[in-house]
Amino acid sequence: MTATATDQRAFNFSAGPAVLPVSVLEEVRDELLCLPGARASLLEMSHRDKVFLDILHQAENSIRELIGINDDYSVLFLQGGAALQFSMIPANLLRDSGKQAAYIQTGTWGKKAIAEAKKEGDVNVVYDAADTKFNHVPTAGDFNVADDAAYLYYCNNETIQGVQFQSEPTCPSGVPLVCDASSDFLHREVDITKYGLMYACAQKNAGPAGVTVVIIRKDLLDVGSASLPGYLNYKNHADADSEWNTPPTFAIWVLGKVAKWLQNDIGGLAAMEKINRAKAGVLYNAIDSSGGFYTGHAKVDCRSLMNATFTLPNDELQAAFLEQAASHNLVALKGHRSVGGIRASIYNAMPTEGVDTLANFMTNFAGKNS
Amino acid sequence: MTATATDQRAFNFSAGPAVLPVSVLEEVRDELLCLPGARASLLEMSHRDKVFLDILHQAENSIRELIGINDDYSVLFLQGGAALQFSMIPANLLRDSGKQAAYIQTGTWGKKAIAEAKKEGDVNVVYDAADTKFNHVPTAGDFNVADDAAYLYYCNNETIQGVQFQSEPTCPSGVPLVCDASSDFLHREVDITKYGLMYACAQKNAGPAGVTVVIIRKDLLDVGSASLPGYLNYKNHADADSEWNTPPTFAIWVLGKVAKWLQNDIGGLAAMEKINRAKAGVLYNAIDSSGGFYTGHAKVDCRSLMNATFTLPNDELQAAFLEQAASHNLVALKGHRSVGGIRASIYNAMPTEGVDTLANFMTNFAGKNS
Repeated sequence: MTATATDQRAFNFSAGPAVLPVSVLEEVRDELLCLPGARASLLEMSHRDKVFLDILHQAENSIRELIGINDDYSVLFLQGGAALQFSMIPANLLRDSGKQAAYIQTGTWGKKAIAEAKKEGDVNVVYDAADTKFNHVPTAGDFNVADDAAYLYYCNNETIQGVQFQSEPTCPSGVPLVCDASSDFLHREVDITKYGLMYACAQKNAGPAGVTVVIIRKDLLDVGSASLPGYLNYKNHADADSEWNTPPTFAIWVLGKVAKWLQNDIGGLAAMEKINRAKAGVLYNAIDSSGGFYTGHAKVDCRSLMNATFTLPNDELQAAFLEQAASHNLVALKGHRSVGGIRASIYNAMPTEGVDTLANFMTNFAGKNS
Repeated sequence: MTATATDQRAFNFSAGPAVLPVSVLEEVRDELLCLPGARASLLEMSHRDKVFLDILHQAENSIRELIGINDDYSVLFLQGGAALQFSMIPANLLRDSGKQAAYIQTGTWGKKAIAEAKKEGDVNVVYDAADTKFNHVPTAGDFNVADDAAYLYYCNNETIQGVQFQSEPTCPSGVPLVCDASSDFLHREVDITKYGLMYACAQKNAGPAGVTVVIIRKDLLDVGSASLPGYLNYKNHADADSEWNTPPTFAIWVLGKVAKWLQNDIGGLAAMEKINRAKAGVLYNAIDSSGGFYTGHAKVDCRSLMNATFTLPNDELQAAFLEQAASHNLVALKGHRSVGGIRASIYNAMPTEGVDTLANFMTNFAGKNS
């Protein structure tokens, strides 16, 4: 059974839910019926059982160790995905604050976040890349944030367009920087002290769908009103150690295993970044050396290390590309339905072999069809 | 590996997350690395992939078939558990309605729901069983609901106290009946046309933690304001077929398998109720025939078929009971920390053999210690 299942697996470039380390999947499989020492499956165990609490704390500690998060921050495991964060952030940090929140719009996810924030208070879109089909991110000087802004919000990696900030946007000291890191969480080292809040739904780079990690500076826990719906109040979750209600136990379990894999098998975020840069380099080189057969969407200086987006000369060639790729064991390469084209998501868990196979296929396909 | 894992499993009386059918766990394990025909794990697959959409629709259709839900209702798969429903229900159906919502309080979960509802609007607690430590539910005539109430809310089975409604509370026609069925969803046949909204977090009787099923009459989808946080608006989820954002794909997958198990292995909800009544009968008989050694918490006419709560003569005997039970392969029997005592949760997936083993142990323990 096992060997067959592994043999049937393809290189999976899905944008999310997305590829996970095979060793993590194998552990989950082996422990699925009965967690060692627990006499039950993790799926059947109370979230207040010490065995699960140890799993929860390991997941939190692994994330703290990987990123280097000190006690000034809470690390929360929530449900509802980025979509609920789009509302929770302004509900806690903007509603009734008398302030304006600053938003940078560099793609589809930032746009959605802005639409939700406008329901909660005054929003100032300080930079908007819509005019160029979201093919770039701003540089210092392209926008201004007021010193008394409630916060500055941005999405570090726009999954659909494949554009990524290479470093944090300029933000006045005293204004909390809020980051949607959903699709590039844990992909490189980061100085968390620059942030007021960073969040990531797990299903792109850190685990399965169903859990969202929120890293929040503790002083921001007290900004939200007690009149908020209880689930939407960050303080409730922080005070209860992510057990204000039953957390998504399975997703946290797998997330913790992925974090351990990053620590032990990869060797931490600096090592992960090196691998990610090498993988992305191979892929973008296949685009750049194709003589114009492949056209990258993002400007070169903000190409995503996670999602490479590109087009072929016409729709027929794109359809043929997808069909032939699948027969080469390369799947889920179709671009998002809103923008079309090809998207190769090469998250942490995508093996180098997968990227090499794709790049070789791309070069051969371009050679035959140019 | 497999045989050992199964051998290590105990009879697990956890109140939730709780026991699942072994055959479902085995299927999940066997398909974990690679879903047949999908070339990837379910955990790695886009929620918009046809393979997952088929899984989502099967889960919905199985629930529709089991309960007998017609097209007047939407069936939604959400995140955030019952705790988020405590807020979503009044946010959609009470806020800005100019109406009052009626709540029946028969235990801890009803109490929590009321606290959240009060943040959203005018709440009338029409019946409160707190004075008798939540040991019963009201009967017809014990309370009145205004004809123009926004809705009547109740919790069908209070997991912590072990009290359960034997049938729906009386509700004026025209007032939507709203039911928290978290801990007894799918445990017996139900006439869904009596309800405006029924919801259940899955992790007690229907699947793993991380997904909440909401069955909502379609006319109620239009009551909520478009200014609600997007995730909290039922209409968004209904219009998008539970894919307004990435749903908790794994939890839905397992939930669908549990529903299929109910259909194919058990034979539907009437058959399930028969088994549940027999199991509960064995357990309550062990209490009633103990000559007062065990004292049930709930009044006899509203004893829960899902959670049997009882006490022993003193704390020392309770500690000894729990310790010896564990050595008889009977685990997770400790009562909720807020009420103490013993709680045996005997959800759908608890095998008859588990209940028989517990009842025999109880009778022997009482005999030796009376």
